[in-house]
Amino acid sequence: MKLHNYFRSSTSYRVRIALALKGLTYDYLPIHLRKGEQRSAAYLSLNPQGAVPSLETEEGALIPQSMAILEYLDETYPEPPLLPDTPLARARVRSLAYAIACDIHPLNNLRVLNYLVGPLGHDQAVQGEWFRHWVALEFAALEKRLAAEPETGRFCHGDSPGLADICLVPQVVNGRRFDCDMAPYPTIQRIHEACMEIAAFAEAAPERQPDAEN
Amino acid sequence: MKLHNYFRSSTSYRVRIALALKGLTYDYLPIHLRKGEQRSAAYLSLNPQGAVPSLETEEGALIPQSMAILEYLDETYPEPPLLPDTPLARARVRSLAYAIACDIHPLNNLRVLNYLVGPLGHDQAVQGEWFRHWVALEFAALEKRLAAEPETGRFCHGDSPGLADICLVPQVVNGRRFDCDMAPYPTIQRIHEACMEIAAFAEAAPERQPDAEN
Repeated sequence: MKLHNYFRSSTSYRVRIALALKGLTYDYLPIHLRKGEQRSAAYLSLNPQGAVPSLETEEGALIPQSMAILEYLDETYPEPPLLPDTPLARARVRSLAYAIACDIHPLNNLRVLNYLVGPLGHDQAVQGEWFRHWVALEFAALEKRLAAEPETGRFCHGDSPGLADICLVPQVVNGRRFDCDMAPYPTIQRIHEACMEIAAFAEAAPERQPDAEN
Repeated sequence: MKLHNYFRSSTSYRVRIALALKGLTYDYLPIHLRKGEQRSAAYLSLNPQGAVPSLETEEGALIPQSMAILEYLDETYPEPPLLPDTPLARARVRSLAYAIACDIHPLNNLRVLNYLVGPLGHDQAVQGEWFRHWVALEFAALEKRLAAEPETGRFCHGDSPGLADICLVPQVVNGRRFDCDMAPYPTIQRIHEACMEIAAFAEAAPERQPDAEN
């Protein structure tokens, strides 16, 4: 398999964690987002959305969208599973994952931050407030669920890491980069730390990728 | 089942379509977003995120997040399926669905539009440009995929409606409300029209819900 991705992209980070958890090897194909390589003709011919990550499967098919890639990997390489057994438990894990994938990350994407500074003419302070506003709003709700719901264990759901943890860790890392105060979210922090003790999470971190920069 | 939802919420609309396609009946529990009912203590105790939709299952469990609800419904009430048979085809449909659910809708949510006008102090013209900017960017990529990929049929994937169509139709309806020019997207328009000929899509439309307003 080949993974078109960028070290700092948190959606790429999700897929790297899943590949590592499942023990899958892949070619790392860097797409430099800040240099605009995602808009090169070659990459757009593979992925018209011009976004990372994209996974090229063993058969040469291309899958865009990290959440679609994660479900594909779980269906195709089922061990260890990223989702629990029952539909209701699976719905819980997906709902935690989507709270990040649909309600935080899309608002704090590079292209959105650029739009605030470019067309809308805001400065970096406003950009930072924007970033922290959405993280704080949604992490507060996520913390409430994780702290209250009995299904939470060492990880977001029970004692094995899964789809929700895969989304959570890159979001926490991203949040720290923008100076989000993590003190109000002890359960999120505890789960993040439990994840970082697992080699698959640690090795997928941005700073450990071949295209990493300061 | 009970569906906490709002007539104009496009994520609620997705779930209404799926419930109707599967022939499932449910209690319609309106949550008036513009009046802030999603932030009432009663609703927050059910769904700490304060978002719609939430599905209460037959067993009384609560599932938030439309994409999690759709996968749950498809796993629990498999006929007719919302996803095709093979992992690769499922990945294609999910990637089309997430292109809308993760890359368009979250940016054009009511709370985000309110933030532009409130804290950021922009006028309605800037708000409208923002809305149309993200729709145009992503619909252009989606149109390219739908027009080029051989799996596209009468609907986004083959000749039966599924998860991608369920996300597409509410986004098109939403886009029209904000005067998005749909002329550059003939394949999206064609699929939208094919969907609207199906009773489940037509009956789920905002204007046909009990809480509909002008």
